[in-house]
Amino acid sequence: MGTATLSIDLGALIANWRALDTRSTTETAAVVKADAYGLGADRVGRALARAGARTFFVAAAEEGAALRRAMGPGPVINVFSGHMRGDTDMIGDMALTPMTNSFDQLVRHIEALPGHPFGIQLDTGMNRLGMEASEWAAVRDIALQQNPTVIMSHLACADEPDHTMNAQQLTTFHEMTEGINAPRSLANTGGILMGADYHFDLTRPGIGLYGGLPFADGTPVASLSVPVIQCRDLDEGETVGYGNAFTATRPTRIATIAAGYADGVIRAMGHDAQLYADDIACPIAGRISMDMIGVDITDLDDPNPKALDLLGPRQGIDTLAEAAGTIGYEILTSLGARYNRRYVGG
Amino acid sequence: MGTATLSIDLGALIANWRALDTRSTTETAAVVKADAYGLGADRVGRALARAGARTFFVAAAEEGAALRRAMGPGPVINVFSGHMRGDTDMIGDMALTPMTNSFDQLVRHIEALPGHPFGIQLDTGMNRLGMEASEWAAVRDIALQQNPTVIMSHLACADEPDHTMNAQQLTTFHEMTEGINAPRSLANTGGILMGADYHFDLTRPGIGLYGGLPFADGTPVASLSVPVIQCRDLDEGETVGYGNAFTATRPTRIATIAAGYADGVIRAMGHDAQLYADDIACPIAGRISMDMIGVDITDLDDPNPKALDLLGPRQGIDTLAEAAGTIGYEILTSLGARYNRRYVGG
Repeated sequence: MGTATLSIDLGALIANWRALDTRSTTETAAVVKADAYGLGADRVGRALARAGARTFFVAAAEEGAALRRAMGPGPVINVFSGHMRGDTDMIGDMALTPMTNSFDQLVRHIEALPGHPFGIQLDTGMNRLGMEASEWAAVRDIALQQNPTVIMSHLACADEPDHTMNAQQLTTFHEMTEGINAPRSLANTGGILMGADYHFDLTRPGIGLYGGLPFADGTPVASLSVPVIQCRDLDEGETVGYGNAFTATRPTRIATIAAGYADGVIRAMGHDAQLYADDIACPIAGRISMDMIGVDITDLDDPNPKALDLLGPRQGIDTLAEAAGTIGYEILTSLGARYNRRYVGG
Repeated sequence: MGTATLSIDLGALIANWRALDTRSTTETAAVVKADAYGLGADRVGRALARAGARTFFVAAAEEGAALRRAMGPGPVINVFSGHMRGDTDMIGDMALTPMTNSFDQLVRHIEALPGHPFGIQLDTGMNRLGMEASEWAAVRDIALQQNPTVIMSHLACADEPDHTMNAQQLTTFHEMTEGINAPRSLANTGGILMGADYHFDLTRPGIGLYGGLPFADGTPVASLSVPVIQCRDLDEGETVGYGNAFTATRPTRIATIAAGYADGVIRAMGHDAQLYADDIACPIAGRISMDMIGVDITDLDDPNPKALDLLGPRQGIDTLAEAAGTIGYEILTSLGARYNRRYVGG
């Protein structure tokens, strides 16, 4: 067992979806792009469908096709990147719904798959995806005649509820969709937490489902236990790892554990992150290497722990993200392919 | 085609292996752990075997089992993490050779699989894996009676040839293996470049095969082209992406491309990295998000490029690593699962 175990708590996932569904005044979808933020879109999708989710969002048509194979017919699968060149067969055969982002995409879709469901993505100021006001004004009548399933936009600053950008995007979304009968969608997790004004007809939580901020009341979903390969005692002055980056300042016991940056343990967190043996923190000693990490276990009673926890009750994705100078989202999506994935609950 | 294309040049890979083989005074193995540094251990392994490599190294038994399935019988597959609890069946059934790291592992191996090949890993100062001098002195005679296939250690500072640690580890390795007939191995890529004193009976290049430093004469192996989802014009003062992190200081054209940190485009590189349209650099605009990046393409002649290059002739893994505050190794191993992988050459 030279590989670590990533446990994914489907019960916690479902609890998070239900909690966000309770706060939504409308239908609650689920964003499962990037392989459900690294946790497995097939298992996550099926668990949320059992819990009552009927609408799912992915980033690319390829992801949508894989999700359709896992979930079967029934759930709506919306594709954020829309109808790109080369996507027509996948969208048609796998019953995907592209969120068309531009006049070009809209024309491509209507010409290639007349009558096939599609949505429309509007840009309300993030300048990333979606039609701008002028483009939308020009195509709006034609587009609406084709009965889009949803008209959506995305918030750029929803993780900061006090940011003026939120109200500004809300106003723009109202202006761009006034008098339209098609269902509308604006809120990601942060948007749900900002209240009913942002909910419209469909909310789209992502990070909150997986136990990450800004949903502070969420339950952690991922935990990660890394096996110890071997332990050794160091004299004061001895060094550990590449570049001799750690020097023992006391008699020190080091555990070498079997995960590294190739497993998504972001190398930048080496200075500040810790592993846990139950409640006791053990700092990383030296640089994180590709497949291994040295950990200072001097303060443990057990001189030969079998495994140490990187994600668990004492250290969640957002704490680890802080050590790596990033956000919980990247901690999750970096989780690597070498782990044994164990699904519990649900 | 909402996903990017990662091209892997097997011809360049083979050329790098041959160049390092020419510099090695002895047999040259190939390190293909972490899925061949993210590039696909099955294809990389088979290409290098055709080129003449007979010995391969992986990190964990699970990787070794997958590699054996891909390569068939014949090549030697050595496992750095040794013979861990639960590994016996895989090691036995898939004909893997564990590099035993401790007395415990050695005993486990000899008792569970008597007569099955194994190597020995010694610690010469890195304090990460391998037996220490005192442990080795105690088991040396018993271990050697069992005919280990290789006795190895690993250099902590080989990327810095002037570091005094290198000569120190070389001396320790000599002291620990004096008078032993078994084949010996010490050199990774950096060790090969430091000259014949470090080569012993088997060299083990890893990063150098994949076109990374410290092998400055290597040929790049990976290139990455990311499709553009859509382009838009911004007025001065408009913002882009999460947190409004980019503000246009001139009339600006932005391309939104279909890759993000979920694809291993490390989020930390957002401030300093660039995409390329042939020879023209286009800076990243705003934060890298999970599945998308905004790119400032104002200076391009073509207002609607179909794709932009993140890795290519103008920007290799080490340049990109600098932008992300890390090393080329992590750029490679972070390459995500969503890419279309295209193998060329070889």
